[in-house]
Amino acid sequence: MIKAVLFDAYGTLYDVQSVMKKCDELYPEKGAQISQIWRQKQLDYVWIRSLMDKYADFWSLTKEALCYSLEELELQYNEEIVEEILNEYLHLNLYPEVIEAMNIFRPRKLAILSNGNLHMLNELAKNTSLDNHLDDIISVDDFKVYKPKPDAYDLTAKRLGFDKEEILFISSNGWDVAGSKSYGFTVGWLNRLHKPIDRLGIKPDYTASDLKKLAQKIINI
Amino acid sequence: MIKAVLFDAYGTLYDVQSVMKKCDELYPEKGAQISQIWRQKQLDYVWIRSLMDKYADFWSLTKEALCYSLEELELQYNEEIVEEILNEYLHLNLYPEVIEAMNIFRPRKLAILSNGNLHMLNELAKNTSLDNHLDDIISVDDFKVYKPKPDAYDLTAKRLGFDKEEILFISSNGWDVAGSKSYGFTVGWLNRLHKPIDRLGIKPDYTASDLKKLAQKIINI
Repeated sequence: MIKAVLFDAYGTLYDVQSVMKKCDELYPEKGAQISQIWRQKQLDYVWIRSLMDKYADFWSLTKEALCYSLEELELQYNEEIVEEILNEYLHLNLYPEVIEAMNIFRPRKLAILSNGNLHMLNELAKNTSLDNHLDDIISVDDFKVYKPKPDAYDLTAKRLGFDKEEILFISSNGWDVAGSKSYGFTVGWLNRLHKPIDRLGIKPDYTASDLKKLAQKIINI
Repeated sequence: MIKAVLFDAYGTLYDVQSVMKKCDELYPEKGAQISQIWRQKQLDYVWIRSLMDKYADFWSLTKEALCYSLEELELQYNEEIVEEILNEYLHLNLYPEVIEAMNIFRPRKLAILSNGNLHMLNELAKNTSLDNHLDDIISVDDFKVYKPKPDAYDLTAKRLGFDKEEILFISSNGWDVAGSKSYGFTVGWLNRLHKPIDRLGIKPDYTASDLKKLAQKIINI
């Protein structure tokens, strides 16, 4: 029986496309390239630092990844430009079906678990009024351990106070699906981009192309 | 004083471009796309499995990453095609200056430290006659710990029998430079692609655009 639903944030509840638009506005016709390198470097930096045991918070990693991307593409930048782009992370759009899905998931406990800093997540939830629909917002920054390390999921389960199988964790990211399922959560994969499943020897319990469809699949469990 | 020189293999001593050519031969005009997704997924799978504490050897991860890439691009494949592409990993070309550089690095102890399986590395060294120039070939598969985890470098240092500062580790990969320097090796970055340094708060001790230039920089230390 699912007693709590836990959501990843970026790419799962929030569309990160508007960051690309901002990049394109500041660097015409370069937005797609900047975002592609930036997103990959952001993930790389999380993983490399985790593996090296050199934790740094997500905001600063994201900033370093952005600066790297601009340097690789030989684009000029200064602190003001970087801050302007980064601030887009505080004003992302919710995917259109999210609020409706939240209502279907009730009366279970609902929370976010993200690699983002608490400040980033709180601002985003407030700016999009999602805070009214959530019981908790959990940042790995509280634990200084990034997903997909098992400890990030385990410390969250303890904080929520449920057994891991009673928690449905939902993410659009293959690495997050693998990590959370490997840890022991019940897992839903939001395959928004219609991609094949990552070949990591792990399958999610539920798959759907948007959050409302996923909510309807688990409504009676 | 540098008593041993340790080399990463893929991208550092060996050019992985021929793998792209094989992909392009089997999937005309798709080689570049396949290799791009494949290389990224190969790294992702190493890191995600490391973080999840679910080790699998490099050959099987590389195979899973290749299958994923073909699936994402909606290309048909079978076991025979996959093996044909993978076998390119056993027949990569050495970068042209490598043998000459090895002679400059002598009389120090010379070895490879790679995430690849021992079978892959041994075949490659034999096929390119690099084995005649090396004292040891070390695969992380012996330790079941991938780079850039500190243990991968530490277990290698113990096996070589030198203090970590006496070992010069050389890699073209930013994550490997960061991991090895963070562990404590003396580190040379082979910036073959003229890219900016990864922004991970760590700088290599030496940088050069090819291995001969790097060898000449450290000839007297």
